Amino acid sequence: MIIVMKVGSPEAEIERLTDELQTTWNVTPEKIVGQHKVVIGLVGETADLDPLQLQEISPFIEEVLRVEKPFKRACREYRHGEASEVAVPTPAGTVYFGEHHPLVITAGPCSVENEEMIVETAKRVKAAGAQFLRGGAYKPRTSPYAFQGHGESALHLLAAAREETGLGIITELMDSEDLEVLSNVADVIQIGARNMQNFPLLKKVGAQDKPVLLKRGMSATIEEWIMAAEYILAAGNPNVILCERGIRTFDRRYTRNTLDLSVIPVLRSLTHLPIMIDPSHGTGLAEYVPTMALAAVAAGTDALMIEVHPNPAKALSDGPQSLTPERFDRLMEEMAVIGKAVQRWPQQQPVLA
Amino acid sequence: MIIVMKVGSPEAEIERLTDELQTTWNVTPEKIVGQHKVVIGLVGETADLDPLQLQEISPFIEEVLRVEKPFKRACREYRHGEASEVAVPTPAGTVYFGEHHPLVITAGPCSVENEEMIVETAKRVKAAGAQFLRGGAYKPRTSPYAFQGHGESALHLLAAAREETGLGIITELMDSEDLEVLSNVADVIQIGARNMQNFPLLKKVGAQDKPVLLKRGMSATIEEWIMAAEYILAAGNPNVILCERGIRTFDRRYTRNTLDLSVIPVLRSLTHLPIMIDPSHGTGLAEYVPTMALAAVAAGTDALMIEVHPNPAKALSDGPQSLTPERFDRLMEEMAVIGKAVQRWPQQQPVLA
Amino acid sequence: MIIVMKVGSPEAEIERLTDELQTTWNVTPEKIVGQHKVVIGLVGETADLDPLQLQEISPFIEEVLRVEKPFKRACREYRHGEASEVAVPTPAGTVYFGEHHPLVITAGPCSVENEEMIVETAKRVKAAGAQFLRGGAYKPRTSPYAFQGHGESALHLLAAAREETGLGIITELMDSEDLEVLSNVADVIQIGARNMQNFPLLKKVGAQDKPVLLKRGMSATIEEWIMAAEYILAAGNPNVILCERGIRTFDRRYTRNTLDLSVIPVLRSLTHLPIMIDPSHGTGLAEYVPTMALAAVAAGTDALMIEVHPNPAKALSDGPQSLTPERFDRLMEEMAVIGKAVQRWPQQQPVLA
Amino acid sequence: MIIVMKVGSPEAEIERLTDELQTTWNVTPEKIVGQHKVVIGLVGETADLDPLQLQEISPFIEEVLRVEKPFKRACREYRHGEASEVAVPTPAGTVYFGEHHPLVITAGPCSVENEEMIVETAKRVKAAGAQFLRGGAYKPRTSPYAFQGHGESALHLLAAAREETGLGIITELMDSEDLEVLSNVADVIQIGARNMQNFPLLKKVGAQDKPVLLKRGMSATIEEWIMAAEYILAAGNPNVILCERGIRTFDRRYTRNTLDLSVIPVLRSLTHLPIMIDPSHGTGLAEYVPTMALAAVAAGTDALMIEVHPNPAKALSDGPQSLTPERFDRLMEEMAVIGKAVQRWPQQQPVLA
Repeated sequence: MIIVMKVGSPEAEIERLTDELQTTWNVTPEKIVGQHKVVIGLVGETADLDPLQLQEISPFIEEVLRVEKPFKRACREYRHGEASEVAVPTPAGTVYFGEHHPLVITAGPCSVENEEMIVETAKRVKAAGAQFLRGGAYKPRTSPYAFQGHGESALHLLAAAREETGLGIITELMDSEDLEVLSNVADVIQIGARNMQNFPLLKKVGAQDKPVLLKRGMSATIEEWIMAAEYILAAGNPNVILCERGIRTFDRRYTRNTLDLSVIPVLRSLTHLPIMIDPSHGTGLAEYVPTMALAAVAAGTDALMIEVHPNPAKALSDGPQSLTPERFDRLMEEMAVIGKAVQRWPQQQPVLA
Repeated sequence: MIIVMKVGSPEAEIERLTDELQTTWNVTPEKIVGQHKVVIGLVGETADLDPLQLQEISPFIEEVLRVEKPFKRACREYRHGEASEVAVPTPAGTVYFGEHHPLVITAGPCSVENEEMIVETAKRVKAAGAQFLRGGAYKPRTSPYAFQGHGESALHLLAAAREETGLGIITELMDSEDLEVLSNVADVIQIGARNMQNFPLLKKVGAQDKPVLLKRGMSATIEEWIMAAEYILAAGNPNVILCERGIRTFDRRYTRNTLDLSVIPVLRSLTHLPIMIDPSHGTGLAEYVPTMALAAVAAGTDALMIEVHPNPAKALSDGPQSLTPERFDRLMEEMAVIGKAVQRWPQQQPVLA
Repeated sequence: MIIVMKVGSPEAEIERLTDELQTTWNVTPEKIVGQHKVVIGLVGETADLDPLQLQEISPFIEEVLRVEKPFKRACREYRHGEASEVAVPTPAGTVYFGEHHPLVITAGPCSVENEEMIVETAKRVKAAGAQFLRGGAYKPRTSPYAFQGHGESALHLLAAAREETGLGIITELMDSEDLEVLSNVADVIQIGARNMQNFPLLKKVGAQDKPVLLKRGMSATIEEWIMAAEYILAAGNPNVILCERGIRTFDRRYTRNTLDLSVIPVLRSLTHLPIMIDPSHGTGLAEYVPTMALAAVAAGTDALMIEVHPNPAKALSDGPQSLTPERFDRLMEEMAVIGKAVQRWPQQQPVLA
Repeated sequence: MIIVMKVGSPEAEIERLTDELQTTWNVTPEKIVGQHKVVIGLVGETADLDPLQLQEISPFIEEVLRVEKPFKRACREYRHGEASEVAVPTPAGTVYFGEHHPLVITAGPCSVENEEMIVETAKRVKAAGAQFLRGGAYKPRTSPYAFQGHGESALHLLAAAREETGLGIITELMDSEDLEVLSNVADVIQIGARNMQNFPLLKKVGAQDKPVLLKRGMSATIEEWIMAAEYILAAGNPNVILCERGIRTFDRRYTRNTLDLSVIPVLRSLTHLPIMIDPSHGTGLAEYVPTMALAAVAAGTDALMIEVHPNPAKALSDGPQSLTPERFDRLMEEMAVIGKAVQRWPQQQPVLA
């Protein structure tokens, strides 16, 4: 349920109202300050509340609306239609993810292999215009005998790359035991597709402060995905970015997954959360990544995550879907053309140094 | 198997070679004249042929290559990497579908309802810049009790719209019994998703001259889809356009199908045939159509098919996924922005009259 | 809508009522004589009819019920909960398919290859206890270059096998042009998975008298499948058997399709039509066929279709999923154990009239 | 790689060989004592080992075979074709899961609601013939606002039910933090479908002693599922039971999932691990559960898991798929008929030691 306040409602009245809701009406109010209006979201046992009765508790209430969807805090209506933005402080300044901000580019290797490769890759993608470096320290692998990531030592290498370049760091958390050490380095904590419904892990990243990148499970419905975000929001962390990375379908002969770009308009209508597209996992083959990246930009994604490796043929994981730095440079130029056409290309920062 | 001829091979030698292949080597040669070279495709029992031995039958042969894929004529290698173009004569001139031509736009209602609506819609989409009118005379419907299309009388109405506007006509053939009457009106014959593997029908449209638009079956793999095109090519008709219209996946809550835009780069690498995208069936909801159309343009589709209805709320079929003429006008403007950015927008024709 | 008549309603009154419904009420009544009661199914514009008003047109009406499902004639309620039976005359007597009849076994090769193999296979499967011979004359193949069946000449070989053994014949119709010649031989006409929504073909087999075996499309929902049966019923042919042959899912590594045995209880609750299971296409591998056949018997299928080939390694099509005659003999013994346990095995109750 | 020892190889020689393999050849040998032969499985860097060279290190070696599959310890060949058994001590004696043991039945509610309901249900399912009680203390729920299980207090209630009835307890672990407290009560630890690829959790249950029930992820391929089991085996715990609970497909209208019974013959050929089928989640509707349970028994499953609730209409979770105790009683009788027919029913051979 949400309460939309009239324009110009006094702060003190909103305060009073919030208190009354909590104490007398037994619901949890959350104040959301929009561009023009203040909205108060109500979570809890709202099923029996009467909107008309609620309406009367303050003359500054414009209207009281029920959120019919199973997701409440993630629902677009919960912010009365307004998009949310996720602000991430990085050494080079705060980067904003959201519908009303320029496209944010994340790039880097599947896994952190050694200091030279990660720092070198970071410099290259930074020079090409990326704001974030991706790189796995802990890797979910189908086989227990496959390379599982260098773990904590890889986190130190990410920190070095961050220091060297000023890029923000996005890296995956698989085990809540690693949350503390990973948080020291990560600017955004990634929850991978396989853990999208690892509810204890969602609760834990919901109970801390770093923004969370939530990848869609490989056969998760859009509703299940938003409900997973709702777990994080409900635990107190409002900073969630949703990342599509391809779904599993009947045809896996030419692409590893089927990148579902229709999530862009669908999520836009359902939720206020920012959207990222990962065409690297989405297709699984480097030659198809640029085309799908361009399509995602035209469709209005808020961010992209692209795998780049200095030598894909020798990558310890996901080589076939990684771009070379040279191909990534060219892709940035191609994306700039579309990005400018749809007015989402960062004007303030030079694309190629 | 294909034989690549040297640049400047004499026509007479190619003629002689073709004869020899047919008579002595017992294969069916097909001459493909590319921009720079002539290629001779060989179909038949080629498994036992030795490329080196073949090489020696003419000094003008540059190389002999084996096509490893199950599709031969549809294979990109069969044209030695060169894209094919499908030329369709319309009252307003010949329209070309293909990688090196501007984007072709097809628009119109799901089904032809009456003369006024179809002529009115035709005028509107023509004015907005479309080159083809779509409209069903025969409709495949899940229920035998649902509107099945007005059949032959609807074909007359399409003819009237064609005459009135100069637009080419694309309409679906479901039953080979209707082929003759439908061919009198259609400039391109559509084979629908449900008939993608109706092999007798494919053979019949392969044995006539009108170009064929082959929609992807709703759970057809890309390979099965190209093999279906191969049926048409093998029967003698080289003019096939492949149309993606969304595939069936586990999530059908917010979209009717999942539009698989990755077919654009994948088909581009596998086949020389032109590509069309249908975001209307692909999403099933008008509000998501424009975004996916823009993504398709950025991804490099050769053509688009978009459902437009003067009054979607009253449409006899597919109302929810049809744009109003006004929304279509706006979409054309939006597409022009991306289309120009990727240099695929028709320069020669004004977009909006 | 259905009208349930009271037990013992006079025939003349039912006659009168049927007439009145047709002439005065403008609906198409279909009389269904059940074990205890007569039910009159009404098809047409029934949406505006008032059950209470209808109730009053005869004192012998017990109740008037609305069928809410999109399928009407195929719906279980349309027969007031009673299963239908499909009676097929064969040289050896009439064989009944249905919930209250013993299990019917169909066996034979994917395609008819030559006289010796088909007659030999027919004798073997007959000796093992099968009542029907399957064998393709016209074969739907993914590739235009693959063996397409021997066509009409294969039909003559099926006729010879029928004559020799007394087995009924089930063979696939792909093209309505072959309907007449195929009907001369087939006791049951098969519509294959790829043609499940070939609506013109469904209408044509609905307008003739031979029973129809309707295979489920490889990604058809249960509802679409029953609606396809409804096309046949609506065209006048009440004798339809539904055949599950595996659906397409994300995992095709170890089985060709995923055999969906849950259709047995689901169809039982939704429709009165008999059910057949095809574990050969359902799994695609001979070694998995017997286990799935046993499971189908335990789940209560009314019939089974099993591919048997005298020499699977040399089969022109579907060799990997064909049982040898020896393995089929053993399977029949294994099925008899389960079949007797669930009281559906023929030996206990003679099948043949 | 596996080393098959000759029948009658002296224990001392096997000992010596094992030592040599570890110290000189740098691989991890695992001795598997089969019914007739001893097999030594080798894990580690075996790619460069030469089987012929290995063969010569002992005259008692019969043959040296390479395991080509990505799963090693879980592979059927790793035990030279012999099935493994999982022995679970319960208050009423040891229960064995495996191909050569009678069917094991697990039953109980989705979640533990209160003492009376869980003890009452335990008594009922025990009386009907079940050997294990299922019941969730920690529940993975799509919504953060849905009932999440009573947690640790529910574990105490399960302990009470165990004490009262002698049934073994199977309950789900979602968070490794709960492993210790859950292990005090659970005789088998369940890893749910959503956590099938929660690799840190798999490693943790692999590093402890309680047997593990590993549910298939809802879109996990069979290979991914066995690889998940391999994680547990590789961490040192050989006692894994694989549980099919339905996969996600395009049709979810009449069943919640599609129960893939073909896993029974497929897993049988690929792995030595015992198999359980869960028709309750597999169909999602109580009315379809008994039929699918019967099919699973006929197909040769080693175990079944069936949801039973004293009052399904009032269940806090999964009510629609829960049987009443009365229906479960009847199902046990129905299963006994098939179970006896396939010689897997407990009554003939006493289960309990």
